[in-house]
Amino acid sequence: MTGGKNARKTVGIVGGMGPEATADLFMKIIKATPASKDQEHLRIVIDNNPAIPDRTAHILGKGEDPTPLLVETAKNVESMGAGLIAIPCNTAHYFHGAIQAAVKVPVLHMMQEVARVLKGKVERVGILATSGTLKTGLYHNHLAEAGISAIVPSDEDQEEVMEAIYSVKAGNLEKGREIALRQGARLVEAGAQAVIAGCTELPLVLRDGDLEAPVVDPTKVLAEACVRLALGE
Amino acid sequence: MTGGKNARKTVGIVGGMGPEATADLFMKIIKATPASKDQEHLRIVIDNNPAIPDRTAHILGKGEDPTPLLVETAKNVESMGAGLIAIPCNTAHYFHGAIQAAVKVPVLHMMQEVARVLKGKVERVGILATSGTLKTGLYHNHLAEAGISAIVPSDEDQEEVMEAIYSVKAGNLEKGREIALRQGARLVEAGAQAVIAGCTELPLVLRDGDLEAPVVDPTKVLAEACVRLALGE
Repeated sequence: MTGGKNARKTVGIVGGMGPEATADLFMKIIKATPASKDQEHLRIVIDNNPAIPDRTAHILGKGEDPTPLLVETAKNVESMGAGLIAIPCNTAHYFHGAIQAAVKVPVLHMMQEVARVLKGKVERVGILATSGTLKTGLYHNHLAEAGISAIVPSDEDQEEVMEAIYSVKAGNLEKGREIALRQGARLVEAGAQAVIAGCTELPLVLRDGDLEAPVVDPTKVLAEACVRLALGE
Repeated sequence: MTGGKNARKTVGIVGGMGPEATADLFMKIIKATPASKDQEHLRIVIDNNPAIPDRTAHILGKGEDPTPLLVETAKNVESMGAGLIAIPCNTAHYFHGAIQAAVKVPVLHMMQEVARVLKGKVERVGILATSGTLKTGLYHNHLAEAGISAIVPSDEDQEEVMEAIYSVKAGNLEKGREIALRQGARLVEAGAQAVIAGCTELPLVLRDGDLEAPVVDPTKVLAEACVRLALGE
């Protein structure tokens, strides 16, 4: 048992973007861990640092660069003993390269993990995400590598998606859910065989079973990847 | 705004006892924080360290001393920048003195906070807690200082309460809830004017409104104390 325990990696979470999404990843890692008592669970170190500037605002050229604080937060969890790092914010993955370059431990890549899960299962997938995530092509590129094409909302509908995301961040889950359901349904009508809830606020209000096509939860996919890597599987 | 932000304290959580209770405190701090966007939330650093040995087992003379790992974990969150520390495990408060002596920042005391909330409102309160917590008199002493007497289950019923707690830790919430409802109702029948869900696993299955008397959630009380202290109120 001791040998097995020592072989386990501590999971580090670069959090705060937003805090509820961070708690959501934390809970999903716990649920994905095979354990029947406290001592069989994983060590998880979290820096929930909501001061990290808005990722989408910067990508759209309207706000402070979040890179320095993202890097500092990643170094913090590494210094706490993290053997791998997860970032429960889709848009923050635009800065993945800079974060990975600043630490010695592997930083999981949400879009890569989602593309891996979907590969060979669907040909066309809908994406609900921030305008920042869409502009960077983060999902498009990784899905294309897996032979999957992406369907996104029209510019007008995308403004509504952003309203949904910031409503959830502000604690108005009802409004966020109402918009996410409508926009998700539109993507399915447009031919999506699955819909990615591609901003960590969205799985808080949109779940598998809510639409006529499966809803993919990147936070859950990331949680399962954390557990696999932490257990050395 | 910057001055206000700098005056805020980072909340440190000594977690893992159990992991779900830690995520529960994290979420309750987020919900108790007045914020309408990410950047207005508190920085929270968490060391979810489930390797900390079982507190009740040690108090009952049957297991390894958790003090060294509790102290190490508290020092970890202090070194991450915590300006105050919370421990989402009732039983671990038996070691509060040793933890407080090892760090420079204030370590909140769950029982003190609960007694403060109940003072002047009730005269007799029921306690559902681990046998470790009951044996140490942690709640009894702080409630007595507030002029409140404590009602606890019989020895036989207490064995069932422990079964409920370890069921929740093992992920069997249904069984935990079924026992917590029955044992909580017995305390109310015995004259309790409120029931303390005095183990951090219990508020996951027993909520205010479930019994004929109010249910006090020490995790929520601790969360609200964290926010008050972090905001300098």
